[in-house]
Amino acid sequence: MSKKSSQPLADALKPYVAPFRYDGSGEFHLKSHKTNAKGGLDKDKATKIIEANREHLSDFQEKLYAQDRWSLLLIFQGMDAAGKDSAIKSVFDGVDPQGCEVTAFKQPSTRELDHDYLWRSNIALPERGRIGIFNRSYYEECLVVRVHPEILAKQKIPPKLVTKDIWRDRFEDISAMERHLARSGTVILKFFLNVSKEEQRERFLARLEEPAKNWKFSMADIGERGLWAKYQAAYQDMIHHTSTRHAPWHIVPADHKWFARVVIGSAIVSALDKLDLKFPEVDKADRSEFGKVRAALLKEGKGGK
Amino acid sequence: MSKKSSQPLADALKPYVAPFRYDGSGEFHLKSHKTNAKGGLDKDKATKIIEANREHLSDFQEKLYAQDRWSLLLIFQGMDAAGKDSAIKSVFDGVDPQGCEVTAFKQPSTRELDHDYLWRSNIALPERGRIGIFNRSYYEECLVVRVHPEILAKQKIPPKLVTKDIWRDRFEDISAMERHLARSGTVILKFFLNVSKEEQRERFLARLEEPAKNWKFSMADIGERGLWAKYQAAYQDMIHHTSTRHAPWHIVPADHKWFARVVIGSAIVSALDKLDLKFPEVDKADRSEFGKVRAALLKEGKGGK
Repeated sequence: MSKKSSQPLADALKPYVAPFRYDGSGEFHLKSHKTNAKGGLDKDKATKIIEANREHLSDFQEKLYAQDRWSLLLIFQGMDAAGKDSAIKSVFDGVDPQGCEVTAFKQPSTRELDHDYLWRSNIALPERGRIGIFNRSYYEECLVVRVHPEILAKQKIPPKLVTKDIWRDRFEDISAMERHLARSGTVILKFFLNVSKEEQRERFLARLEEPAKNWKFSMADIGERGLWAKYQAAYQDMIHHTSTRHAPWHIVPADHKWFARVVIGSAIVSALDKLDLKFPEVDKADRSEFGKVRAALLKEGKGGK
Repeated sequence: MSKKSSQPLADALKPYVAPFRYDGSGEFHLKSHKTNAKGGLDKDKATKIIEANREHLSDFQEKLYAQDRWSLLLIFQGMDAAGKDSAIKSVFDGVDPQGCEVTAFKQPSTRELDHDYLWRSNIALPERGRIGIFNRSYYEECLVVRVHPEILAKQKIPPKLVTKDIWRDRFEDISAMERHLARSGTVILKFFLNVSKEEQRERFLARLEEPAKNWKFSMADIGERGLWAKYQAAYQDMIHHTSTRHAPWHIVPADHKWFARVVIGSAIVSALDKLDLKFPEVDKADRSEFGKVRAALLKEGKGGK
């Protein structure tokens, strides 16, 4: 006897989520993840899934907002030109901006450096009923800060606290914070946009060649590209140590932007589907009051008295 | 051969700190802690220690501020009329208010309830170089919220996340956050002002009888007094599970206000003494520049040119 699933939607999307999700169980090797996977889709089929996901997302977002219990935190990381900005724009196209806030984390300000490195992210966390999108995040503290020791040196941490265990400590502290948020009702999904070095080269060339894309390019990006191997090692270690059931990483194949959008949208829609979101029910007493108010409004007639 | 201590000040204050400090090692029984201890002092001797501590504290605070690396977080908890407000006022008398901020946590606002319960405290954390004083704190989430289940019910946490493990989970999450802060350079000291039920009775009577103290009394306080045993059980469990080397609790005998002030001041001064705070040193190049500027100022003569 086969048991009927209560989440047909999540089940249908599973092929675009499960292969790319890592929740900390078993081994993790970034190198075995293909950057150019397409999940057996072509661009046309992908477009249909992307559009269907947008409708589901818009519907779930309304219920999330009305119910006002859960919040959703989405974290996007990836090398320059991996497609973070455009993925966010595409996946959330049509979703009510009132229920949704994107925070882009750039270099920390002097004031932010006067606090622990999680402080500025804590402030930006989504309220209940809302979707919070972090375009880069506190994970940069284990990425750019790790690849550039001179940034760590400027963080004003008392020198005796900067030990060789600092990255393991950060993984532990970040995971503990995410566990706390999950226990409070925040659903956390993390996306690493996994692009190849060759694909980055082509996107950089496009930014340099097309005037409308010029502003997206910065000379600093080339410097970071030179540190590709170091960044890959930092991503490997970070994903390995901060993936949990309550805050899994998705290693999103990002060479084909359309497939990245299928994976990201499907992961979000599946997670929301599993929450069994419903519009809050009005209780009997209120419903009876509502009936009276409605009757009175009807009696008033058009245009009021 | 006896080893000379490098912290003669902390050593001298040890009798007023060590017996009341619990860092999680060994057993903890709140009932074995006397509320009326005086540490072998009388009020005159205590006053001298309190005054000396104030001077040390003022001196350390200047260095803490100038060095701009460490921060100090002080947490005060206790039953109504345990003396939290007056202890804070007395211990910090004469300390530069610019380097020091007190946050009193009252009932959470609607906006605060839309976040996880640590969110509002996170925002209020002291910057590097500063002293942050929490008059009540996120520990209320394991005290008043535990004693009054109806408050928990209003917290808008998704119902399926409210399990029988919630208090253990909160202890774990709070300890993890404090460990993270300690790793970032926040020294955390926690004070439970341990007052007897009889002493509270007398302080309540004084508040009711002296017009200038009337405003301090609220009818709700009597309701909480009726739940004394439940609060004691909640304090026992909280102190037992959230005391660590990086964030110890001090069980402060609070029946004699003057002795509570000795213990609190001594604990703070000892902790700061152990940081080896120094004014930042000016490097050779800067010092040579400073010499030139000084010479130029002297040459200008009084009143400028």
